[in-house]
Amino acid sequence: MFRTVEWKNSSVVMIDQRILPGKEVYRTYRDYKTVAGAIKDMVVRGAPAIGVAAAMGVALGSLKIKAKDYAAFKKEFDKVATLLASTRPTAVNLFWGIERMRRVAEENKTLPIEKLKARLVAEAKEIHREDIEINRSIGRHGGRLIKNNSTILTHCNAGALATAGYGTALGVIRGAIEAGKKVKVFADETRPFLQGARLTAWELKKDKIDVTLITDNMAGYIMKKGLIDAVVVGADRIASNGDVANKIGTYSVALLAKAHGIPFYVAAPLSTIDLNIKHGDQIPIEERNEKEVTHLAGKRVAPEGVSVRNPAFDVTPNRLVAGIITEAGVAKAPYVRSIKALFRKG
Amino acid sequence: MFRTVEWKNSSVVMIDQRILPGKEVYRTYRDYKTVAGAIKDMVVRGAPAIGVAAAMGVALGSLKIKAKDYAAFKKEFDKVATLLASTRPTAVNLFWGIERMRRVAEENKTLPIEKLKARLVAEAKEIHREDIEINRSIGRHGGRLIKNNSTILTHCNAGALATAGYGTALGVIRGAIEAGKKVKVFADETRPFLQGARLTAWELKKDKIDVTLITDNMAGYIMKKGLIDAVVVGADRIASNGDVANKIGTYSVALLAKAHGIPFYVAAPLSTIDLNIKHGDQIPIEERNEKEVTHLAGKRVAPEGVSVRNPAFDVTPNRLVAGIITEAGVAKAPYVRSIKALFRKG
Repeated sequence: MFRTVEWKNSSVVMIDQRILPGKEVYRTYRDYKTVAGAIKDMVVRGAPAIGVAAAMGVALGSLKIKAKDYAAFKKEFDKVATLLASTRPTAVNLFWGIERMRRVAEENKTLPIEKLKARLVAEAKEIHREDIEINRSIGRHGGRLIKNNSTILTHCNAGALATAGYGTALGVIRGAIEAGKKVKVFADETRPFLQGARLTAWELKKDKIDVTLITDNMAGYIMKKGLIDAVVVGADRIASNGDVANKIGTYSVALLAKAHGIPFYVAAPLSTIDLNIKHGDQIPIEERNEKEVTHLAGKRVAPEGVSVRNPAFDVTPNRLVAGIITEAGVAKAPYVRSIKALFRKG
Repeated sequence: MFRTVEWKNSSVVMIDQRILPGKEVYRTYRDYKTVAGAIKDMVVRGAPAIGVAAAMGVALGSLKIKAKDYAAFKKEFDKVATLLASTRPTAVNLFWGIERMRRVAEENKTLPIEKLKARLVAEAKEIHREDIEINRSIGRHGGRLIKNNSTILTHCNAGALATAGYGTALGVIRGAIEAGKKVKVFADETRPFLQGARLTAWELKKDKIDVTLITDNMAGYIMKKGLIDAVVVGADRIASNGDVANKIGTYSVALLAKAHGIPFYVAAPLSTIDLNIKHGDQIPIEERNEKEVTHLAGKRVAPEGVSVRNPAFDVTPNRLVAGIITEAGVAKAPYVRSIKALFRKG
């Protein structure tokens, strides 16, 4: 298959998602600054994959720290963590991954520095390993919600490419198929970065899962034709009340699903749920470069000087969400209570 | 400014809308077969502009007919009309324009052939002239519905480029501005052909109208932010009950507008209303080449062999339409009655 992000010989190796599916290129990062650049430039994207990459970036940065005591180590460590945390604002897994590494450093501060470094590398690798396991659990829980002979609409890419492997939303689809169900997929192309056209279509085809590509504005038409049985998407950050920040266009898909009586599910690890955030309006929404909108495949399509908006995410209010599928089970409304219950179990 | 479609020295001249805004190229068509090709390939697009181009194609075809009596002429004329009618199935103005030319031929069949040909050329030019006048009336009627300091969302291009000039939906915006109102515009880019990014943004910028470009999947986000006061779009065919076929994605925009309490208006000439069609489900929806979805700016972005749907239009049910703005006034629900009333006036 392929490896989204991997620790290999004291370096981080990532498949370059900017040029898929045309070219399958693995890039090797040997220092945390270039890992930060790779996250910012979307060589790697998808909340869980960003969390793993950030943790590996912290491990990589730690390895290079020349310090003899923890205080000196910690000072450099904080620089590494701060740079990595500044790359993208919306996906909470970024901060979660860095925070987990920070906690491990703190808990092991009495170790000799070289042992501490080894412990941090081990933790980053553990986060990677866990993520695949978590996605398989999400797949098992979510797979039960999918009826046999269903057609699922998904938006963006919440697949193996958005995680350490297996995927969240696409994990649910894989889980349903592994449970013996027949499932077809419609993938929104997901402008402007085309994660659906480039990544979801590619990884599902590789897996021999039946996938049909549409432009984002065809979703309503396809739903009205009765072709969609459920929507499953991933998430970049979920508030404690169940409001969901995810790739721009998700909110529109959720409204369209509601209008057609189609259940709209969100699949994400518990690490995507931000208990510090009460509701979706508090989630920071990244605005990215205008060029993503004005240019296509490197070529300008819009007139010079046109004003552009390019929010990378939107927030879907909890009332539109039929269920949040996590590794600890499925939360349903009312979400404040059901999410708390999952954390007690998880 | 620019000229969308024009009769000039026994030929039809059209601005090539496939390569705007990068290149402003006028192409000259000297026979009806190449006019048919230009309609099919979307050198010219937009229901009213297609109607004008088809009528001019009929005139061009008629000029070349070598016949000495009407019966012989009519045989060739029917071939011309049939080919032009086969180019695109959804926009009814195509059939309306051809039908009007056929009626003129029939009504003047006693004229000498050369005089009949001149009469047909005059009719095509008259259709062109009338279309601009009709759009100005649409602009006056529709302009009254737009409040001062409004921001209008539009989808696709229903502007001067979609008509002989001035535009239908963009005519409403121009009408509001001419009435002294301040109006800003958000333009959906409108995948796959990017009429919004390439054409609407371009012609509004030329006119110094404030326009902001977004991808189609940002419309919900922008509406939720409270940035949109009204939606105005064009139409390719309107059923006698007020169901509206328009560019793919229009239905989604209408549902989003409904969910946010934003009025959704359709601007179109009476020639876009097909009284032979009772409701929208009877309107044929063109599916276009998969390449429009899999390729961007000539470059493949989706994986080889992926399944694709590419419906070029969708149908918005009348219950989502706040008003249909025509040259004879604004129809409101219940549409069967109000549309009939407009035809009596129009």
